[in-house]
Amino acid sequence: MDGKDIEGRVDRMQAQIRNDFPILEQKINNNPLIYFDNGATTQMPNCVLECLNRHYMQDNANVHRGIHTLSERSTCAMEDARKTVADFIGCDDPMQIIFTRGATDSLNQVAFGYAAQYMQKGRKVIVTEFEHHSNFVPWQQAAKRTGAEFVVIPMREDGRLDIEALERELDESVVIVSVTAISNVTGTVLPVREIIQKAHQYNVPVCVDASQAIRHGQMNVRELDCDFLAFSGHKTMGPAGIGVLYGKKERLDVMEPLWYGGGMVDVVGNEDTSFTTIPYRLEAGTPNYPGAIGLGQALHYLQEIGTKEIAAWEKELTDTLEQRLSEQKYVHVLGGNVEKQSVISVVVDGIHPYDMASFLNKYGIAVRSGNHCAQPMLRRLGYDSVIRFSPAFYNTKEEIEVIGDRMEKIISFLKKW
Amino acid sequence: MDGKDIEGRVDRMQAQIRNDFPILEQKINNNPLIYFDNGATTQMPNCVLECLNRHYMQDNANVHRGIHTLSERSTCAMEDARKTVADFIGCDDPMQIIFTRGATDSLNQVAFGYAAQYMQKGRKVIVTEFEHHSNFVPWQQAAKRTGAEFVVIPMREDGRLDIEALERELDESVVIVSVTAISNVTGTVLPVREIIQKAHQYNVPVCVDASQAIRHGQMNVRELDCDFLAFSGHKTMGPAGIGVLYGKKERLDVMEPLWYGGGMVDVVGNEDTSFTTIPYRLEAGTPNYPGAIGLGQALHYLQEIGTKEIAAWEKELTDTLEQRLSEQKYVHVLGGNVEKQSVISVVVDGIHPYDMASFLNKYGIAVRSGNHCAQPMLRRLGYDSVIRFSPAFYNTKEEIEVIGDRMEKIISFLKKW
Repeated sequence: MDGKDIEGRVDRMQAQIRNDFPILEQKINNNPLIYFDNGATTQMPNCVLECLNRHYMQDNANVHRGIHTLSERSTCAMEDARKTVADFIGCDDPMQIIFTRGATDSLNQVAFGYAAQYMQKGRKVIVTEFEHHSNFVPWQQAAKRTGAEFVVIPMREDGRLDIEALERELDESVVIVSVTAISNVTGTVLPVREIIQKAHQYNVPVCVDASQAIRHGQMNVRELDCDFLAFSGHKTMGPAGIGVLYGKKERLDVMEPLWYGGGMVDVVGNEDTSFTTIPYRLEAGTPNYPGAIGLGQALHYLQEIGTKEIAAWEKELTDTLEQRLSEQKYVHVLGGNVEKQSVISVVVDGIHPYDMASFLNKYGIAVRSGNHCAQPMLRRLGYDSVIRFSPAFYNTKEEIEVIGDRMEKIISFLKKW
Repeated sequence: MDGKDIEGRVDRMQAQIRNDFPILEQKINNNPLIYFDNGATTQMPNCVLECLNRHYMQDNANVHRGIHTLSERSTCAMEDARKTVADFIGCDDPMQIIFTRGATDSLNQVAFGYAAQYMQKGRKVIVTEFEHHSNFVPWQQAAKRTGAEFVVIPMREDGRLDIEALERELDESVVIVSVTAISNVTGTVLPVREIIQKAHQYNVPVCVDASQAIRHGQMNVRELDCDFLAFSGHKTMGPAGIGVLYGKKERLDVMEPLWYGGGMVDVVGNEDTSFTTIPYRLEAGTPNYPGAIGLGQALHYLQEIGTKEIAAWEKELTDTLEQRLSEQKYVHVLGGNVEKQSVISVVVDGIHPYDMASFLNKYGIAVRSGNHCAQPMLRRLGYDSVIRFSPAFYNTKEEIEVIGDRMEKIISFLKKW
């Protein structure tokens, strides 16, 4: 499907899609809200909110441990959501879907529950310079604790991952490679499939941080053959406080629980405890079952719109945005001439990102400034702080035009000082 | 305030209170729902649902890391909720409130983030037989991992905690005492204040699992002088997936984060990372900010009704329920002749709790059967499974009458077989 087709389809769907997100129809500082902060949190469509309301007004009860009707309804709805998640990522067995509180939780569980038991002096864990702190600091700290070597594969001068550096590091001593599918700073699409193939040559498992990539629907775990996949509800049109960890069965089976409590035990003796099977062994305590149910509804919504269409339209928006911003005097798009998706970051000569974001907010434009929880990546780019624009499928080219115009105005205003 | 006053006030408020919980006004199997499973999950009043809807429809954005208007609104709302929680438990400094995903999360953080660093051979951790798995298994596993001794203070024959046994175990070698305020199985109110005073004589910190006790509003951390306090949103009229850990400042300051990610770091170098201060150091990743906001609203709601009134009315319901069930042939109320609050468990001669709960559900009565995630307590009581009734302030004496009548019918029916 090319850009033209997508645009036509999106034109027809745009009105409907915008209707699904009433939060977008408000004014901020007397200007229509232009929400370009989807890399941090996406908005929730009406159907997810309705699903949460219906749950809380009709079916709410604790899951798994009750036989009364409300508890059965809640349990069924949560387990249906597990199936929906599995289906969304191309996983055959819903029991390989662990509900977590977010991607950060998922990644920490892989680092400390799976990988740490194999980490020791003489072994390595590999991440990249493109990582968010949540896929960087857990590995660094697990390595520090166990004596394993922490290897960070750099970004090349041209903005691509230094895949040769990865190849040089890969051998049987590597415990795991953990890599993001899309940089949350530059929008760079990483060659995840290639990384997985190379790592698997040495039987090294690969964990994919799909936080930015998931809503495009192309994180098919069967096709990717990744060993773990992590993402959050609040970056995929679902509620906050819920996340997912997918794992291959043989990997999950050896994962140690990091949390202990109800719902994950078999027999609790005074001396010791035996634990139940996955996914429940890794879901101690009352799970965020309304969050899981809402996430399931959000993924249904994405499937209804069409994940291919979402991916294509967001790509179109990303390219248009990159083009529009590149044209501007004093503005530098970061990350080089590489494939980007749904995230574009810039710096503006002589204007601090904080000031730029504040001025944009005066015009109703919501963007992020700062280090985007990716200090290693920022250091590599040579900045402390950048401005990030992250469109989602409910955004429009008209909004990008407004952003471009406002940026020009702000720059010309600030440059006069 | 005595039972009569409370009843009068509650009579006046009952219609209004019931209106706040539309989920209660439904039929299950052609009978009005009688929801007595509040020990597992309480229902959410309209105002909390409205608060969540308002948030998602007007203000939703990621917290802490953005300067645009929506992000500021979300951040302010979450930090306001932190203040509300602090206020609700009598804590002066909102920075001593850590948002977690639930009591299980809170208790695990105390076990592994605080206590484990002091645990070793020759030192002890103390819990009681009254604990839920979430306040039992983490300590047991932390002790196993570190070589510390895991001490379980028993229940006496009369149903009270064996406080003399606790006194015998207390000395400077104890790392921590962790105890529930109310048993989730028998409803037994434990002498938490006395336990804390005794432990503090040896400078031993005390962690209180307030999951069952919190909504009665009498968990004042200043008065109790507890070192840690844990509870969940979904047991206090708030959303699921959110919980609280309170700690004394000097305790929280030495707590090690168990999760690493965004929002909790200072500087992330390739070699090592420095971390920020509490509470944020212990809240890695995007927190469940809508959950926190909803919890704040729920606590406001409890305060509006009046926590003293809630405590008194739930006590009245509990006593009435205990009385009504005790009168019945074949029915045995568990836990002895002790002060109970909001939880009553029974066994029925010759009828399996699962069958009893299933039959009650046919009459629209929602109760739990099973081990209630408290196998050590169940073993002590001599059962694998019991039936639990857990009323909340929206329940009525009329409902208790119906429960009593239905129990009699079911028992007489099943006894004929």
